[in-house]
Amino acid sequence: MNGDDLRDETLKAHSARKGKIQVVGKVAINEANDLAMYYTPGVAYPCLEIKNNKDLSYEYTSRGNMVAIITDGTRILGLGNIGPEAGMPVMEGKSVLLKKFGGVDAVPLALDITQEDWIVGVVKALAPSFGAINLEDIETPKAVNILKRLEKELTIPVFHDDSYGTAIITVAALKNALKLVGKKLKSVRIVVNGAGSAGFGITELLLNSGATDVICCDTTGIIYKGRTERMNNIKEELASMTNKSGMIGSLSDAMKGADVLISVASNGTITKEQVSSMAEMSIVLALSNPDPEIGYEDAKAAGAAVVGTGQSGIPNQVNNMLAFPGVFRGLLDVRARRMNVDMMIAAVDAIAKTVGRKQLTADYIVPDFNDNKMALKTTASVAEAVAAAAMKTGVARVQKKPGEIKRDYIASVKRYNRLEKLISKL
Amino acid sequence: MNGDDLRDETLKAHSARKGKIQVVGKVAINEANDLAMYYTPGVAYPCLEIKNNKDLSYEYTSRGNMVAIITDGTRILGLGNIGPEAGMPVMEGKSVLLKKFGGVDAVPLALDITQEDWIVGVVKALAPSFGAINLEDIETPKAVNILKRLEKELTIPVFHDDSYGTAIITVAALKNALKLVGKKLKSVRIVVNGAGSAGFGITELLLNSGATDVICCDTTGIIYKGRTERMNNIKEELASMTNKSGMIGSLSDAMKGADVLISVASNGTITKEQVSSMAEMSIVLALSNPDPEIGYEDAKAAGAAVVGTGQSGIPNQVNNMLAFPGVFRGLLDVRARRMNVDMMIAAVDAIAKTVGRKQLTADYIVPDFNDNKMALKTTASVAEAVAAAAMKTGVARVQKKPGEIKRDYIASVKRYNRLEKLISKL
Repeated sequence: MNGDDLRDETLKAHSARKGKIQVVGKVAINEANDLAMYYTPGVAYPCLEIKNNKDLSYEYTSRGNMVAIITDGTRILGLGNIGPEAGMPVMEGKSVLLKKFGGVDAVPLALDITQEDWIVGVVKALAPSFGAINLEDIETPKAVNILKRLEKELTIPVFHDDSYGTAIITVAALKNALKLVGKKLKSVRIVVNGAGSAGFGITELLLNSGATDVICCDTTGIIYKGRTERMNNIKEELASMTNKSGMIGSLSDAMKGADVLISVASNGTITKEQVSSMAEMSIVLALSNPDPEIGYEDAKAAGAAVVGTGQSGIPNQVNNMLAFPGVFRGLLDVRARRMNVDMMIAAVDAIAKTVGRKQLTADYIVPDFNDNKMALKTTASVAEAVAAAAMKTGVARVQKKPGEIKRDYIASVKRYNRLEKLISKL
Repeated sequence: MNGDDLRDETLKAHSARKGKIQVVGKVAINEANDLAMYYTPGVAYPCLEIKNNKDLSYEYTSRGNMVAIITDGTRILGLGNIGPEAGMPVMEGKSVLLKKFGGVDAVPLALDITQEDWIVGVVKALAPSFGAINLEDIETPKAVNILKRLEKELTIPVFHDDSYGTAIITVAALKNALKLVGKKLKSVRIVVNGAGSAGFGITELLLNSGATDVICCDTTGIIYKGRTERMNNIKEELASMTNKSGMIGSLSDAMKGADVLISVASNGTITKEQVSSMAEMSIVLALSNPDPEIGYEDAKAAGAAVVGTGQSGIPNQVNNMLAFPGVFRGLLDVRARRMNVDMMIAAVDAIAKTVGRKQLTADYIVPDFNDNKMALKTTASVAEAVAAAAMKTGVARVQKKPGEIKRDYIASVKRYNRLEKLISKL
């Protein structure tokens, strides 16, 4: 579809049923007996059980599969601060994706507040109803600050897809690309362009994965300790974690001789000249959406050995959807108390390994999300890996046997596909 | 089922699928084109439309049929302050009922905060995601204060079922009972026993419906202007609205010669002697759950002409479920900005009228909720009446034609019944 057609069809599709999500039962109410169990007087029994042991809320309520998608509408897609009401179509979309591809029940909550303290307070207040929190499309540095605070204060995992989700799929793509060019993560020079949630999350995960030479850039240029122009608390943190040699200069300066460019700078541009100035066998991941900072063809023509973008329909779509459904599936299945680095790295490796040795080429570094079988396989692997890492690191409330999570996940996808078929007919 | 059986069956039923509710799509995602519409890049179009006109959130998101069920866990059923996690089974039950009987999507949110200011703040923050708010099982007087504050500050309706829902069905029952005994609301003496959310809501609605002689009692006795023992701000309000003669004394004193007793005093007891002391052709609505303050048989034996309780299986079950699904259906269908007295009275009259002149007997003053046809008919009538009142009083965002709401409602019930059948098989 072209732009105008897509607009018309999209608006029609959104208004046909007034939005995209609904809340339904897991159980049927057909007779007085059902009412007596699911409502009064029987419902008092699970209430009392949970009163005596809060963890039983995972057993007797839907909490354990329920995620709150939280936004304040301040950074919706590439549209910026359009407010909570206007951000809702994206959040409902995310909810449908989480159900369809992760078997997760997700409640989108677009908040009419933007102050960091208030958002933290509201999410804390909401925690008893959910098994995990997904922060979404909140402006930086606030989003990162909220994430860090909530992680300290809550006993359920907090996932920030713009940060963690993007980081997982990006590092997975990079790991596979590095295999192809015969370079090692610990010894390559990596330039991360963009110091928002994505740039911060990617940088953190790169360092946690063994990268040693990372230079971060924003629109002002290289971020270094002591820089005073356009800094904020997360850029200060980036400055202290990266750029050990204290390089000062522009993005072009940073890219000269670099092995890897990861660009997550919305509306940013990378030139062919900048790519040409990189080291031999360079890797370019230009991930802005909907338009990459440099197109696949241009980056290739400028000499990059491996190129990935966020675009569908061309090779190497680096797509969060390969990460977040599986991460949520895994952490919910073991009732995790929090996300941690081990779980992130487990997710990275699971995605990277889903592309077999024989499949791995410069034009196939990440699983193709549009290949339904590949998407399911990837999600199942990520779920298993995240759950295993959670159990290993002691943040799981329950233990699962190998294979159990994958089996349950595949079954839930099948169940939902049947339900979806009926829904689309009603 | 007896108590032990009910306990076992209920716990098993709650853990079988881990709770009672799930979030699913209204739309199916089958191909890349669906993703492009429901998620990126197409989703940007409804976002931008809503950005330019917030009311379009009712058109392009699920908000218009979405209700938040808010509790803080401080007064769950008759169990008291058992906390948000433990309150959740009740809230999920309510969610299923709202979908099944009202066609309403309801998200239960049990909050980990109990301060009035915080609850008000959190609900205000959540408002952009919902078409209405349902306050549930919050201790009084806080619940009433929160209700009044939110009604002033929000542009979506706030319904407090313990207060408004109980008031609607109770006044409907009373109106029909008065027809039977040939008395008029404006001239009868009514004793309301219990000064919590229900007692307050009932008293307010009685006065707004034309009652002139109401005496409120709590465990301390009659509430009067100037009383100092065990008062709070809503009892002060009750004192100033009722008891014009300044009667002082006990519940027994108040009941002597009274035409009507409405008791909503959890754990309270009414004796046969108290009922015997009432006027000729007295009406007793003893509504505590699960056990009434005086049983149907005892109240009848003591001389009451008409008796209603909250119990199922005996005549005159005064059940909120006859009120709240229809009220929500009606106010959501016209995208109401708020609840008001006219809408409440419209709901009362709709319920009362559903019992035809020929049906009306001392043992049939309210529709029987367990009669499925009667329940649907009542809900449809309440929805139509509430919507009409909202349109008439200028609080409706959209206008509906007569019959439209009923037709859509019946269709939604049928759709959900089909969905529920499949869900229970999956």
